[in-house]
Amino acid sequence: MTRQILLNAGEGHPARPFNFHLTGKDHSSRARTGLFHTSHGTVDTPVFMPVGTQGTVKGLTPDMVRETGAEIILGNAYHLYLRPGHDLIARFGGLHKFMNWSGPILTDSGGFQIFSLGALRKRTEEGYAFQSHIDGSSHVMTPETCMAIQEALGSDITMCLDECPPYPASFNEVESSLALTLRWADRCAKTRRSPGRALFGISQGGVHPSLRKRGIEVISDIGFDGYALGGLSVGEPKELLYETVDFAAPLLPAEKPRYLMGVGTPEDILECVGLGIDMFDCVMPTRNARNGMLFTKKGKLVIKNARYRDDGSPLDDQCGCYTCRNYSRSYLRHLFIAREILAIVLNTIHNVTFYVSLMRGIRSAVREGAYGAFRKSFLETYRTNQEEDEG
Amino acid sequence: MTRQILLNAGEGHPARPFNFHLTGKDHSSRARTGLFHTSHGTVDTPVFMPVGTQGTVKGLTPDMVRETGAEIILGNAYHLYLRPGHDLIARFGGLHKFMNWSGPILTDSGGFQIFSLGALRKRTEEGYAFQSHIDGSSHVMTPETCMAIQEALGSDITMCLDECPPYPASFNEVESSLALTLRWADRCAKTRRSPGRALFGISQGGVHPSLRKRGIEVISDIGFDGYALGGLSVGEPKELLYETVDFAAPLLPAEKPRYLMGVGTPEDILECVGLGIDMFDCVMPTRNARNGMLFTKKGKLVIKNARYRDDGSPLDDQCGCYTCRNYSRSYLRHLFIAREILAIVLNTIHNVTFYVSLMRGIRSAVREGAYGAFRKSFLETYRTNQEEDEG
Repeated sequence: MTRQILLNAGEGHPARPFNFHLTGKDHSSRARTGLFHTSHGTVDTPVFMPVGTQGTVKGLTPDMVRETGAEIILGNAYHLYLRPGHDLIARFGGLHKFMNWSGPILTDSGGFQIFSLGALRKRTEEGYAFQSHIDGSSHVMTPETCMAIQEALGSDITMCLDECPPYPASFNEVESSLALTLRWADRCAKTRRSPGRALFGISQGGVHPSLRKRGIEVISDIGFDGYALGGLSVGEPKELLYETVDFAAPLLPAEKPRYLMGVGTPEDILECVGLGIDMFDCVMPTRNARNGMLFTKKGKLVIKNARYRDDGSPLDDQCGCYTCRNYSRSYLRHLFIAREILAIVLNTIHNVTFYVSLMRGIRSAVREGAYGAFRKSFLETYRTNQEEDEG
Repeated sequence: MTRQILLNAGEGHPARPFNFHLTGKDHSSRARTGLFHTSHGTVDTPVFMPVGTQGTVKGLTPDMVRETGAEIILGNAYHLYLRPGHDLIARFGGLHKFMNWSGPILTDSGGFQIFSLGALRKRTEEGYAFQSHIDGSSHVMTPETCMAIQEALGSDITMCLDECPPYPASFNEVESSLALTLRWADRCAKTRRSPGRALFGISQGGVHPSLRKRGIEVISDIGFDGYALGGLSVGEPKELLYETVDFAAPLLPAEKPRYLMGVGTPEDILECVGLGIDMFDCVMPTRNARNGMLFTKKGKLVIKNARYRDDGSPLDDQCGCYTCRNYSRSYLRHLFIAREILAIVLNTIHNVTFYVSLMRGIRSAVREGAYGAFRKSFLETYRTNQEEDEG
């Protein structure tokens, strides 16, 4: 008899209601700590979620992801709908089973990816008609189908289908896009979800305070399990990102988790935690790892640079990751220059560990009421060595 | 103070003399079991050695390599001399420390790679003058420098510099090449080696019995710690490979390990163990893994084929590797088609485990005096499903 290893859907994971509790608060900023429960485990906030678009955090086994300390990862409904198909994943008991990740999963709706298709997609009141970026095949994604896809994937946290205009966009464009996103949010909220699955609303409105305010009022009235700030980190100047988060975060319901989508650098995360954000995701640690740009307490490091040829020290002598416990910068430089696959694996382990450790440090500092001092000290050290590519 | 993690050369590995003992013998073939001791551990034979040309078994951490059951891996003196440099590796305490592999390492001389450079290399009595395949820089490799490179790498088993003509080559060409290889073997044997480091001689002579015989007589007279058959699996028909091994293997000293370089498929290994070979290496399990061709007890499997889209079974339901314990064919097909790095990692774990498990099965069968039955049964099952690419 052939072993069927992935068809035991949901075993060992009874549905548990999603809920969020605040556990600490900084005195001199809006930084806060909390935790939320899901059917696949508890997550401490502020949290960084490694991105696993296609059902894998690029380059890492789930065991390696777990060893970085990451408690929750991201998937992408658009990508997984197209390939291998949410229906297929559902037949295998959902995304957790399919990819062998037993912890919580948040799935992004893919609205950003579909919008980015440009001429390959057409938007109507009903939803998006679009052509696959993989094979050009035609598809439709409505708020209802987007929810059904994420339901099939078995995500612990589902994101509403939204429209995400890039920066710059005119006030009128953003206003009309926001209105549609809000009507879609209402439709998403009316779909059926299995017990224990959370749904987050998304605030759009670009960098326009009046639109942000209007959007947040509407999604707060609809009522979600958490609230995201979307439409940021899409090309706007850093000051406008920070100003918008500063303005918008306190308008979001304080008793629910606040998720800043697609952000960002260590500096961005430190800034935005101070503005009251609880959840982050970004491709930066994983993508930069593949490009040989590594994060250390003393700043960024470009591993191919000649200065590391004879460097016997670990990437970061304060890091306890597998890579730093076992390998010199010299070896990592060799692997990267020789285009070895192991370079990607080891670099990704390190960068994800760096982000996860940063969040752990942030949570400690907030709980001790010392967030300002932690942030200042971290940034002073981090800015000692912002290295550029020597070419 | 900066942590220097890789500068403790040789700690915990006192030199231990290389020696080989026969432990078992099949009755109806020349198959035999044995073991050899090195300063970095003991290896059971017949053994398959995964290839780690550039200081990494492509795609695997050393922990993963160890988990496949592999006891010894290969490095390549030519590649490591060019990049990152044997001198650099020596400063880090040798290849074991540099790449974080604590088990035995055999290094190939790189003679085959240099010969394959064609117009980029010129051969004289003294050695090779060649241009790097990486950057065109000029280099010289003599028997003496080749030994010095492998000494610097700290290999447990060092291979003589040889010349390896491809098939077909005329008798005269092979004869004159063999004569040079034998003069070089003598020069290699006269170099100084650290205690505990073994040196293997290489039999050349193509598919010509008289040349094979002459070569083996000379290298046996020089005296080495082990003997390799080189210059095979270089384009000759399978029958000629088997005939040559059948002829040459029994001429090699029986009390030393016999290593068939660069061979081969599971069928080749089964055939050549029966002819008296103890050691094998081949890029097939690792390279095929990267191309999505996977080995199972029931034959080869091309993971991208559509038939695996909904296949919830593991690659091989008799395999206990990490990949087979945790993933369906459907997920592995998804990863491969989506060009995810994890596809390479998981496929390589499986294929190397397959080869290592095959050798374990072979050793058991030989010890039980049942090698013929094992081989027949293995091949019957293995030939049920020799799958081709469906395109």
